[in-house]
Amino acid sequence: MLSAEVNDLELRLDRLLDSVAAGGLDAALITSDESIAYLTGFRPIQMERFFGVVVRPERSAVIVPALDRGQIDDAPAGLARVSYGPESDGMPELAGALEGADAVGVEEDHLIYARARALGEQGFGLVPAGSAVMNLRIQKDAGEIERIRHACELVQEGLRRAFEWMSPGVVEHALNARVEGWLREQGASAAHPLILFGENAANPHGEPGPRELRRGDVVCADLSACLDGYWGDLTRCATVGAPSEWATSAWRVVLEAQQAANAAAQPGTPGRDVDAAQRRIVEAASDLGAVLHGAGHAIGLSIHEPPFLVPRAHEPLPERAVLTIEPGIYQAGVGGIRLEDDVVVTTGGPAILSDLPLELVDVGA
Amino acid sequence: MLSAEVNDLELRLDRLLDSVAAGGLDAALITSDESIAYLTGFRPIQMERFFGVVVRPERSAVIVPALDRGQIDDAPAGLARVSYGPESDGMPELAGALEGADAVGVEEDHLIYARARALGEQGFGLVPAGSAVMNLRIQKDAGEIERIRHACELVQEGLRRAFEWMSPGVVEHALNARVEGWLREQGASAAHPLILFGENAANPHGEPGPRELRRGDVVCADLSACLDGYWGDLTRCATVGAPSEWATSAWRVVLEAQQAANAAAQPGTPGRDVDAAQRRIVEAASDLGAVLHGAGHAIGLSIHEPPFLVPRAHEPLPERAVLTIEPGIYQAGVGGIRLEDDVVVTTGGPAILSDLPLELVDVGA
Repeated sequence: MLSAEVNDLELRLDRLLDSVAAGGLDAALITSDESIAYLTGFRPIQMERFFGVVVRPERSAVIVPALDRGQIDDAPAGLARVSYGPESDGMPELAGALEGADAVGVEEDHLIYARARALGEQGFGLVPAGSAVMNLRIQKDAGEIERIRHACELVQEGLRRAFEWMSPGVVEHALNARVEGWLREQGASAAHPLILFGENAANPHGEPGPRELRRGDVVCADLSACLDGYWGDLTRCATVGAPSEWATSAWRVVLEAQQAANAAAQPGTPGRDVDAAQRRIVEAASDLGAVLHGAGHAIGLSIHEPPFLVPRAHEPLPERAVLTIEPGIYQAGVGGIRLEDDVVVTTGGPAILSDLPLELVDVGA
Repeated sequence: MLSAEVNDLELRLDRLLDSVAAGGLDAALITSDESIAYLTGFRPIQMERFFGVVVRPERSAVIVPALDRGQIDDAPAGLARVSYGPESDGMPELAGALEGADAVGVEEDHLIYARARALGEQGFGLVPAGSAVMNLRIQKDAGEIERIRHACELVQEGLRRAFEWMSPGVVEHALNARVEGWLREQGASAAHPLILFGENAANPHGEPGPRELRRGDVVCADLSACLDGYWGDLTRCATVGAPSEWATSAWRVVLEAQQAANAAAQPGTPGRDVDAAQRRIVEAASDLGAVLHGAGHAIGLSIHEPPFLVPRAHEPLPERAVLTIEPGIYQAGVGGIRLEDDVVVTTGGPAILSDLPLELVDVGA
């Protein structure tokens, strides 16, 4: 945690309280891991046990299983501490913390149906209000941007090493494991390397397997790591030996698409326009492969968070949003090329949080 | 995937169809990662994009983002393939697959409120029916039990190495990273070491940090890994140098509690009785520390899945449930002792899927 952390947490809680009042809500119920971390400084390990933060005038509270009560010491003093033992599922304690509230804003993309239903049956009126906390989380403060930059620095060093460790005969899942282990040893609390070889790289969400790296392969190396609570996420590509005509052409198109999308990432621009900026370029090159995803997404406490840069994203981007911009082209049976950087939206133009060269690396030399 | 996989998937789909009919439902909507994997053989990476399986007579379907359409080739032929591009959020495609259905069973612990609400507004009547698929998933088939056993074998080898790599001066997060890297190199698709030193071990969900291992510490080493889709999860403890009186006493009590809970894990016994068997022993030793969690939980495609062995679990355990049994005692400022094995419930008595000795290891020699 950075130095301003305690003040930051209190400021966030105050802002969310303002937003609850402005939205005509009696309370907000925060249930996603990352939003809980945003408000309390504690990122829960949520499985079946209920965790939540209730934000309401004078009666805000954090509710955790007894198992985790040792971990909320740094939460703002304005949050009452409520814990429950294994004889409870946490719902009576939640109902107690919400007592007297009628309109309760919830994170509609995280609250599970069973709990929504139980709250409804107890007479609480649920209102989708995930945007109340996401509108705060989108605009990163200076400390958050620094943490994302640190995560990106770690990831780009991981990419450098990954390319060093590539040579014909290396096994895909072993390379991914080695890179993950290295990122974790550097202090990443989580890391998701997705380094795919040859035809496997044509699936953006393919799974590393027993395949060996071969001369002539394209490699698509997508690395993400969470450092001090915040994610960095970068992608670079390589070839084993001189690149094929397809690889060179696809890389040039994707690079042009990335630059166009970066340039479009301005305050006030809707996410769909950032997507469109890259989409018209990659889709015009349909002979090189398919376009399987949007331009990217915001990143921060979560590796994927709104806004998502897709055709249906009509909200204007705020200043200090941090976005991954990651166009790609995928040719079944051949491979995939994607380039990804993390970019801060500023009035002075996009600020890229890494300086790793974008070129196709030849790892076959 | 094991040899019988395709037949297994079809059998599971047929059974779920039977259960849909028996429950008076028109369809079931399956949305959790693990249940999707159970039915299709494909474990999605779910973030903001919708994945689902609709199970209904003659019109079952699997719905995935275009990004992942390359990965459902092995799903049963009885599932129509539906994919959607970045211009959609998948909900129109889902509504299409559910068309004509009135009562739709859902996984109430996984479906998010936003989607439940959208389906409700379109006139679908949602019915909590997570137990329909969980009642199938609880009873593991022979192939599943073998995979959990393999995962346990990997985890116990990981624990052996972790203890070898422990010596005074080792840094907690570096050791966890090393163990995680090793587990991933062996082919684990995910691994969660939680090896905690000294007073950190008093928090069962503490986070590994920069603390060095010191003479006199207790170590609580909880390792889990997912191999070929299935999890294994084991915990053993160590001391650095001869164990303190507290460590010896706590270990003896926890061992007795684990043996009692193992013995109670019989077909037909409710989960709460397995919990009670260990709870009366650890709670009687309250001078040694607090009891912060139940006896354990089922394990399989998910690292934590129902039934949970807690005081409110009144359903009888079926044959071939696989449970982690993991009593513990936690003394704030001192440490924690927990012992965990994965146990198959059989009519012939509990079958433990690992053979790693339970004793306190002295890593200070």
